[in-house]
Amino acid sequence: MKIQVLDTTLRDGAQGEGVVFSHEDKIQVIRALDALGVDYIEAGNPASNPKDQVFFAYATEKLQLMHAKLVAFGSTCHAGCAAQDDPGLRALIQSGAQTISLFGKSSLLHVEQVLQTTPEENLRLITDSVKLLVDHGLQVFYDAEHFFDGYNDDPDYALRTLRAAQEAGAQLIVLCDTNGGTLPGDINRITQKVKKAISLPLAIHCHNDAGLATACTLAGIEAGAIMVQGTINGYGERCGNADLCQVIPNLELKMGHQCLPDGKLPSLSKCARLIAEIANLSMYEHSPYVGRSAFAHKGGMHIDGMLKDRRSFEHIDPELVGNSRRYLVSEVAGRGALMTRLAQIAPDLSKESEQTLQIMDMLKQLEQRGYSFEGAEGSLALRVLGSLDRRRNFFEVLDFHVVSRKPENDKNAQAFVKVMVDGQQEITADEGDGPVNALDLAIRKALTRFYPCIGRMRLRDFTVRVVDSEGSASSVRVRVESTDGEHDWATVGVSSNVIEASFIALTDSIEYMLMRELDGWQ
Amino acid sequence: MKIQVLDTTLRDGAQGEGVVFSHEDKIQVIRALDALGVDYIEAGNPASNPKDQVFFAYATEKLQLMHAKLVAFGSTCHAGCAAQDDPGLRALIQSGAQTISLFGKSSLLHVEQVLQTTPEENLRLITDSVKLLVDHGLQVFYDAEHFFDGYNDDPDYALRTLRAAQEAGAQLIVLCDTNGGTLPGDINRITQKVKKAISLPLAIHCHNDAGLATACTLAGIEAGAIMVQGTINGYGERCGNADLCQVIPNLELKMGHQCLPDGKLPSLSKCARLIAEIANLSMYEHSPYVGRSAFAHKGGMHIDGMLKDRRSFEHIDPELVGNSRRYLVSEVAGRGALMTRLAQIAPDLSKESEQTLQIMDMLKQLEQRGYSFEGAEGSLALRVLGSLDRRRNFFEVLDFHVVSRKPENDKNAQAFVKVMVDGQQEITADEGDGPVNALDLAIRKALTRFYPCIGRMRLRDFTVRVVDSEGSASSVRVRVESTDGEHDWATVGVSSNVIEASFIALTDSIEYMLMRELDGWQ
Repeated sequence: MKIQVLDTTLRDGAQGEGVVFSHEDKIQVIRALDALGVDYIEAGNPASNPKDQVFFAYATEKLQLMHAKLVAFGSTCHAGCAAQDDPGLRALIQSGAQTISLFGKSSLLHVEQVLQTTPEENLRLITDSVKLLVDHGLQVFYDAEHFFDGYNDDPDYALRTLRAAQEAGAQLIVLCDTNGGTLPGDINRITQKVKKAISLPLAIHCHNDAGLATACTLAGIEAGAIMVQGTINGYGERCGNADLCQVIPNLELKMGHQCLPDGKLPSLSKCARLIAEIANLSMYEHSPYVGRSAFAHKGGMHIDGMLKDRRSFEHIDPELVGNSRRYLVSEVAGRGALMTRLAQIAPDLSKESEQTLQIMDMLKQLEQRGYSFEGAEGSLALRVLGSLDRRRNFFEVLDFHVVSRKPENDKNAQAFVKVMVDGQQEITADEGDGPVNALDLAIRKALTRFYPCIGRMRLRDFTVRVVDSEGSASSVRVRVESTDGEHDWATVGVSSNVIEASFIALTDSIEYMLMRELDGWQ
Repeated sequence: MKIQVLDTTLRDGAQGEGVVFSHEDKIQVIRALDALGVDYIEAGNPASNPKDQVFFAYATEKLQLMHAKLVAFGSTCHAGCAAQDDPGLRALIQSGAQTISLFGKSSLLHVEQVLQTTPEENLRLITDSVKLLVDHGLQVFYDAEHFFDGYNDDPDYALRTLRAAQEAGAQLIVLCDTNGGTLPGDINRITQKVKKAISLPLAIHCHNDAGLATACTLAGIEAGAIMVQGTINGYGERCGNADLCQVIPNLELKMGHQCLPDGKLPSLSKCARLIAEIANLSMYEHSPYVGRSAFAHKGGMHIDGMLKDRRSFEHIDPELVGNSRRYLVSEVAGRGALMTRLAQIAPDLSKESEQTLQIMDMLKQLEQRGYSFEGAEGSLALRVLGSLDRRRNFFEVLDFHVVSRKPENDKNAQAFVKVMVDGQQEITADEGDGPVNALDLAIRKALTRFYPCIGRMRLRDFTVRVVDSEGSASSVRVRVESTDGEHDWATVGVSSNVIEASFIALTDSIEYMLMRELDGWQ
């Protein structure tokens, strides 16, 4: 069956701690969601937020979407206020969106304690607000906030709020577990009751406060809902919303439904990562289906099993969601994992050779010093090639020296470098914003004379992690992600000194690019 | 009903990407789990790993546990091998553990493709291995690996493997969803079937590959299992194991079971954070129940609701699991949130005052520059007091200058600083391992002359995040966690220059300590 998908990353997702989207970010997120093929994109709350008003005016006029419809979110009118006089409803009507998610109260606790009004007045708010929007030709999804809690308190009243919305012309009822505390069995049972009481189609909107948002969403669908609501990567207030990156593959691959247009599921992992990047948040790499670790095998016995039959430790083929299988190199993994990686780096090495043992030993020692090659395949390749004496000496940094001052202007650090390439020295300097930036610029400036292709390279990201915890003298692991516009690669450096760790990761990154560019290394 | 808890953080959890425990770490984890009150701690695999052998020898002899029992994990004997000759089983017997988790194959796919043996020989391995351990007086939990997948392939054979273990003297059967791909409804249905076929008590062991590990674990308990297995923070291979920090509170607070001894549930959040710290992993702060964001309210309407009635946006009282409620200061939040925080920092300010508006404006501007006060209450307090002209001028850093060299030895950075306290200057220098370390040491050295209490302070952690993504010239946010041995506090600095950002966070941290020490500020 076709299950509709409403994404609320830009609305409910933006309520998550640390999540902020600029105007430009929002446009990029909408394009990514539209390309993925979700049916509805809830893009903000123009009624409460002037920035969102400006955004809707722009988005509904300028963005040509292929598939998705934009949805504006807002509240029923205020108690004691006529719907047509309510500024919030007016903002929704003027937003330009053809579909409105209109939320109202289903729970007497909220009616009495939060709205501080009477149950009857609340029904009036729902009726009048829905009617006003419908009279303006808008499609209304009625969002029954705290529905499950409200139903538990007083099922009759909760159902009356839904009937009010239905009779006023809403086209869909959204059952919300706003506080995220309901168990899947209760979601299923109550949704079934609603389905009997209400003739409109139902949507299910869950939060993850009990770690059950995915299960609750599936339970809602099993009970007859025809739309799921959630966010990419599960962004959202507190513990987040239902994660569409879990909900969609479960519905499609395990329950026989269709959520996205044909052929779109394999773009899910890329979409998740793109939206994390737009939000400037690290991916949670253990995320089901779309995380980098989701199909990463570390235990020796697991890797051994995987090499014999790939179904042995994978619940689905990672390509179905656009992810890929990885064999991690670690203390726990046996030689099987390492051999799989070595086979790519040095296809001639045999499992039993002396050199393989030496490489394993070297990697183990580096790991003990705080290296982690799990996310830095570039540096792993360089270390392995180095140990085999196959590392080509593209350049040598003979010396450097960086001075940082109390910053009074933008260029507060200067770096001096001396490099050697094929017997020729180049001494140069550059200045930058901070010591790592100055050093990076100076090294690349010196080397570009010999290798012009370095001009195309740029750093996409760098992260610094403290490896052990003894204050600022502990070791740091610097991971650098670089790109030449086409390929990305990652390298890593470890030192007790952030400058040295950065230096290792930066020079590894340049060397890895040169290997690929000049030696055709993949 | 009492549900038993088996924690496998040290065994299955250690298979997670990025998770490594040293000998010392393991001891600390065991102490933390024992204090929490879990019933069993699966602490490693002495059969496959010589380090774990050494560890068990130590742990079973030296650790005096109050409540928990140590469990050693290992496999049935090899195909074609007599149980009494199997080195793995011998290692289990010699481990000193009184309880053994013995895993074997329930799935014909694994018997044929991975073990590469016959179904009958697999039954023999199970029978002989369990018998051998039981004959040595050990309690055996039989771990039916891939049980649900095996049951789906061939229910009769899967049940025969369990009967073999039962008849050989195992005391409990663990139903494992090893690949984490089973839906909760199927877990429930199959567990019920097993309960009818087998007289031994059942445990449920789930993985999170479909985002359903918590729901599946609860489904197993609903179907009659009496033990849950999982890890703290859900650590584990790929997407992790069932997260005990979700499973336990759901069972206790929502399903009426008891997992931990009376009064222990409120120590759950602390235990989760402690184990993350031992593993040197950042907490995933959106984690249900135990994450810092789990009860953090950001949306203005939500905060407004919370201030009226705390049940309005919380599914449980955070104190039940030892967590606490937070109101975030952010663009999305209304003035309600900020007022709650301001009421702590400057109790005299009113919501409507000009000063409150100015503070909000200042914070918004800092946020736009990349500051995030969501995790750095120390810096927030300093900025607010500064804006009110209530920041006491404990010291001023008049100048500094840091030189970093290509590292040849440990002390490769030198910092010069000039500070002023009460009209008196102090010029000094120090050297360190990297520029941030040198600068930190020099500033504290200069200030300790005036404020000896600074000697008690040390940095617990510092993290660096790139705030926007334009290579190494983008802004970085440095967050410093400090401690005086008794209290912890966090501060934050943002700059395009990592030295300056660190400088801001370090000096904020010192100032915040002095405010607490000398002015009695809380």
